[in-house]
Amino acid sequence: MSEGALAGGHGSEPTDGPLTLEELQLAARNRGMPLEALRYDITPTGLHYLLVHFDIPSIAAEEWRLHVGGLVADPFELTLADVRALPARTLAVTMECAGNGRARLNPRPLSQPWLVEAIGTARWTGAPLRDVLDIAHISPDAVELVFTGLDRGVQGGEEQHYQRSLTVAEALLPDVLLAYEMNDRLLEPQHGYPLRLLVPGWYGMTSVKWLAAIEAVDRPFEGYQQKDAYRFQLDPDDPGESVERMRVRALMVPPGIPDFFSRRRFVEPGPTLVLGRAWSGEGSVDRVEFGVDGGWADAALEPAIGPYAWRRWSFEWRAEPGEHSLSCRATDSTGRVQPVEQPWNYQGMANNMVQLVDVSVG
Amino acid sequence: MSEGALAGGHGSEPTDGPLTLEELQLAARNRGMPLEALRYDITPTGLHYLLVHFDIPSIAAEEWRLHVGGLVADPFELTLADVRALPARTLAVTMECAGNGRARLNPRPLSQPWLVEAIGTARWTGAPLRDVLDIAHISPDAVELVFTGLDRGVQGGEEQHYQRSLTVAEALLPDVLLAYEMNDRLLEPQHGYPLRLLVPGWYGMTSVKWLAAIEAVDRPFEGYQQKDAYRFQLDPDDPGESVERMRVRALMVPPGIPDFFSRRRFVEPGPTLVLGRAWSGEGSVDRVEFGVDGGWADAALEPAIGPYAWRRWSFEWRAEPGEHSLSCRATDSTGRVQPVEQPWNYQGMANNMVQLVDVSVG
Repeated sequence: MSEGALAGGHGSEPTDGPLTLEELQLAARNRGMPLEALRYDITPTGLHYLLVHFDIPSIAAEEWRLHVGGLVADPFELTLADVRALPARTLAVTMECAGNGRARLNPRPLSQPWLVEAIGTARWTGAPLRDVLDIAHISPDAVELVFTGLDRGVQGGEEQHYQRSLTVAEALLPDVLLAYEMNDRLLEPQHGYPLRLLVPGWYGMTSVKWLAAIEAVDRPFEGYQQKDAYRFQLDPDDPGESVERMRVRALMVPPGIPDFFSRRRFVEPGPTLVLGRAWSGEGSVDRVEFGVDGGWADAALEPAIGPYAWRRWSFEWRAEPGEHSLSCRATDSTGRVQPVEQPWNYQGMANNMVQLVDVSVG
Repeated sequence: MSEGALAGGHGSEPTDGPLTLEELQLAARNRGMPLEALRYDITPTGLHYLLVHFDIPSIAAEEWRLHVGGLVADPFELTLADVRALPARTLAVTMECAGNGRARLNPRPLSQPWLVEAIGTARWTGAPLRDVLDIAHISPDAVELVFTGLDRGVQGGEEQHYQRSLTVAEALLPDVLLAYEMNDRLLEPQHGYPLRLLVPGWYGMTSVKWLAAIEAVDRPFEGYQQKDAYRFQLDPDDPGESVERMRVRALMVPPGIPDFFSRRRFVEPGPTLVLGRAWSGEGSVDRVEFGVDGGWADAALEPAIGPYAWRRWSFEWRAEPGEHSLSCRATDSTGRVQPVEQPWNYQGMANNMVQLVDVSVG
């Protein structure tokens, strides 16, 4: 893979240089949702964004077990049939990668180079996690639960299974699921087959795929993906705050038709219905504004299809001939609004800067 | 999208420079198949490679019609129900993008920057095209059939629907399908819902998605995607030969575990089963060789799962501590073998140079 003109990235420092071969390799395996798919309430499975840290593991469901242990009175194992026999819930959940927007930062943190497409909404079916934890009887000494996936690799110089934790209080919320279906079908391998954690409202790194073990522990988990990755840092020595819930964001279906290579948009003059979706993990979306050349106006908002799913918005734009810059921004019930100016952090986390779409009308 | 350090590509000439923002935008919407998915006989739908020239169109199947006309005695329209009422065939077909390998060329043609992942194998179900053409009674004056998709955009400065043609002789082959199912389900939107052409053995650009019209014509089609794109050119003035059938190729599942960012592989010393797939659109795959540090040995080949699908291969490699470069290459029944040296053409078409995987054993 080292042939050709593509330079390799030789460190982990953010760069103002061009894309590296390593970033291209990640972009070739991971996948965003083409923005025209914002038209669907529920994203077709093959269009949902996907970020796989290591490799998609090969798992024989009949041999797979979920181990529940650590600081619990009654450790046990569950088969997939055991999990499916528990009462099930189905939730429409919008999920976004915490690194969405990273490649729009300058300097650009070196990792999966997302622009704005790391998003999707699916119908997830599973057993509430707390029903499983009830069987185990968590010790009063437990403060967190550690979730271990079967995906394994090296990151930050550490060989590891992918692991993340939740506080006991977060884990016991009724809509945290052990999910075995996506869009009414068994999970496809890349989405965590046979079982994944599903934590509505949080960025996707929390919803551990290929889940193999849940362990109750008496202190905050300090694994790589918790203590080192997914932090709001200003520099590598900054311990930073943990990245958790999805920041408020709106995206639009780029109107008109594209140029294949530049993705420049061409729009007919006259009334144009611009539509998109907006979501927040920190509250409900209360307002979406549509922007043209720096001016803003309120868009029409439809009801959310569920408490954890995006809301459809639309704006009847009268397209005037010429070159225009379109944008959209959402405000949620906590009063948070998307920034127009570029925020920055060392890992390129949670960049919810407004989307810009340049169009030619005429 | 113009913010940040990513330079735009300002022309269509191949470059020895770094990745451009335009290439990143394409890589973020199109998607390769992560190579560990070579383990599956049939690629899960959401893991199959995807290349969409323009936007995925929004199509209401109940309003959609397939128009069959031009130089035929009996032009007609079909509903989706009409197509589904015809006798159906199901075929396992390996499909590859003609641009697969483009980003490994130097200078690098500017388009979707595929490395090696633009591949997948699905079970496609549909009506043989020739059964539909039989109803229309093609004129003896017709030499080609032009297939028009509902996807629309601008490429090479021309506004166009995506269109490709086949000679009448190629179109009448019994395994050319009008496909409405992929992996035993209705097509997902991005794979051509409600109907697509499926031409086994050819690169994917031939299998027109979102098919809306078939027109018999009395001269070779000269639309952009036929006469300008998908040519083996040495320079922009070279008319070149048309890109047609998939060249012979083998790929391997990179063994061991990856580093997240560099995708460098780490392998335990000792016996390691390396496996992959091999295919050719020009004949059957007769041989796969596995290479270690420049030496080659024959891999074991399993039967193909169908005449148009890839063959699984494997090699029991005794991994010795140290740094190694692994590769694989296939030979087909026409005697063609994958090149070790990099071939080049102006559009970056059909680059089937052998895959290289660097691994650390120890």
